[in-house]
Parts: sequence; C-alpha cells; structure tokens
Amino acid sequence: MAQNKVAGPEIERLIQLLAKLPGLGPRSARRAALHLIKKKDQLLAPLSEAMGVAVEKIGICSSCGTVDTTDPCAICSDPKRDSSVLVVVEDVADLWALERASATNAIYHVLGGTLSPLDGVGPEDLNIAKLIERCEGGEIQEVILAINATVEGQTTAHFVMDQLAPLNVNVTKLAHGVPVGGELDYLDEGTLTQALKGRTRF
Amino acid sequence: MAQNKVAGPEIERLIQLLAKLPGLGPRSARRAALHLIKKKDQLLAPLSEAMGVAVEKIGICSSCGTVDTTDPCAICSDPKRDSSVLVVVEDVADLWALERASATNAIYHVLGGTLSPLDGVGPEDLNIAKLIERCEGGEIQEVILAINATVEGQTTAHFVMDQLAPLNVNVTKLAHGVPVGGELDYLDEGTLTQALKGRTRF
Ligand SMILES: [Zn+2]
Ligand SMILES: [Zn+2]
Repeated sequence: MAQNKVAGPEIERLIQLLAKLPGLGPRSARRAALHLIKKKDQLLAPLSEAMGVAVEKIGICSSCGTVDTTDPCAICSDPKRDSSVLVVVEDVADLWALERASATNAIYHVLGGTLSPLDGVGPEDLNIAKLIERCEGGEIQEVILAINATVEGQTTAHFVMDQLAPLNVNVTKLAHGVPVGGELDYLDEGTLTQALKGRTRF
Repeated sequence: MAQNKVAGPEIERLIQLLAKLPGLGPRSARRAALHLIKKKDQLLAPLSEAMGVAVEKIGICSSCGTVDTTDPCAICSDPKRDSSVLVVVEDVADLWALERASATNAIYHVLGGTLSPLDGVGPEDLNIAKLIERCEGGEIQEVILAINATVEGQTTAHFVMDQLAPLNVNVTKLAHGVPVGGELDYLDEGTLTQALKGRTRF
C-alpha cells in the first residue's frame, strides 16, 4: 500500500500502526487490517474498545514495576502472597511466564531490562534503586534472581547481587539443568555441565 | 495468562482479542499486548483511535465489493480509470496486491471468495450476481479473471466465464509463466509447461 493508496488514508494508517507490532511485518499487517475490517463487529470494534480501556486504565505498579490496572498491582496487594520472598525479573513478560506456570507464590520486582553499557543502559536506567529500597524495608528475607541466562542478564544479576550484599537478605538464583521434557542430545554443553554438577538424589 | 489472571481482566481481554489476528498466536499476542502497553502514547493510543475511525468509516463498496471509506470506493469513482476493463479478483487482498504493483488502470470486482461446495459456498454466497449486472450495463468490454491458480479458483473462474458467455464481453485470464526473478529449478512442472507453451519472441 506504500506506493499506491487505494483504500483511503484511514486504512493506510491502520496498516502502518499494525506493522509496528512485534511479529507483524508490512505484509501480515495488511492481512491483519483486512481481517479486522471484515470482522468489524466481532473483532475490530471490540479490539478498539479494549485498547481504549487499556490506554485509560493500565499503568506501572509503583512498587514492583509490572503493568496492571491498579497501583499497587494485584500481586503486590494480594495478602495471600508471601511477601518475604522477592523474585527479580528482567521484564513483565518473565513475570507473566512465572505466573502462568504458577511457579511461585512470592512477590516480584521488574527491572525493566538488563545493563548494557554499549547501548547506554546503566543502573539508573533500570528499576534497581527501588529494589534496594524494598529490600531495606526489613520484610524481605530472600531475593531470587530469575534473570535470563544471557551474558547481559548475568552481568545484571552480578551487579544486583553486589548492591544487595550489604543488606540482610539471602540472594539466590534459578537452577540450571535439563528442561523438563528436554532431550540431552539437543542441549548445549554449558547446560549439560550445569545439570551434572547440580545432580540430585533419584 | 489462561490459568492465572495476574494483570486484570482488561489486559487479559486485550491479549485474547489480539490472538485472533492472523499471524499472532497466544504467545505473540502476549508480546504484542505488552509492547502496546509499554508504548502507550506512541502506539496503543494511536492504534486504538485508528481502529475506532475504521469502525466508523470503513465499509464495502456497493459497486465492486472492496473496502473503503467512501461508497462507491476511490477506484470506482476515479474518472481516470479505464472503466471498460474489469478485473475480477477473489479477495480485497488481491486487489491491493495489483494496486501496489500498479499492474492495471482498470476497475475491479471482488468476488469475496471461491466456490467451494464442500464448505457450502455456492454462487449466491459470492458477489457474482452484481458482476453480471455490471457487465450487462454495456460499458464493460473486457473482463480479466485475476483469480488464483488453485483448484477452487479455477472452478470459480470457469463458473464465472459460463455466466458471462451470453454477454457481449471478452473474458481473459492472467498469463501463466515464470515469475520475474524466478529460478526455473524451483518452479513446479505445470508452471514450466505453461511458460514454454506461452513463449514469446525474444
Ligand atoms: Zn506490583
Ligand atoms: Zn468500488
């Protein structure tokens, strides 16, 4: 549609905005736009409305940094959560993944990225000061660093650990090992080595 | 997010609706929702608005069947178009593709699908009656069947041709052959045979 505007600027604009979604290129954005237009009442109108509601209601939790319609978020304000254990994640997507797995009943802290000096991302660009502040409160006993096993993730984990060292909290990290259902043959050597090192009684 | 609603029903609903877009599964819908929420002012709000405008303004052209904000559409009402030649396509996406290619200055007719007895799609479910009506008007000299070279597409093309036979219009179809930039080695035998049959002087 770039060269030849056949369908009015309104459709063109819809396609251009859809193309900015992760996972949609120009071609799939056109397909998505057409699908939406064809399903105007069943999909386009409800989605437009859901987005409007999201614009109005969704914000960042001032305590943990996740996104929600309330502040503090549903997790931070849930009295059934174990607020003595704090799980530190890079991104809201990681928090969602842990929640989908019902992996923990702890509370969270979202860093909002990883340290990356080359990209100009320093400690002040991440949600680290607030993490220290929460840990100084006295209620948190353990901080679990659930940070991706990438170079940037591990650099960030080490930095956070150094910052937490003077405080009275236990800092732990996720176990390495064979993914459940994983085949040894497909795993990298680092994972295999860690899985052997961390072996447990059968 | 299915099992564990952590982020309020508003985000959940946004994810569920996004997952209905072609090209987005549940996982990429979550990523898309998060991306939208993070870019609330730059992307979520404008997209919500663009969709609202689309809901309000976009409809089907009562002449050719394409989608546009005016009826008749921009193409049907363009006096610079050659309205003696009518290009018949299955879907609006095909019309858009031909327009992007600036392949023709003719006008269009969108069938809205192909005949498919097994799926219960008969002639009355397609935009065929209106096509006959347009061709009976006297202005149209040539009907180009730009219908996909699939079994259903070709069945549909034959049906349309039979319907148009009594009328005073020339019915043509797209040339088969080697795609521009295409390598012979990757083409199917049918295409190669058609490309040889339809050879032209160098
Ligand atoms: Zn929170
Ligand atoms: Zn039209």
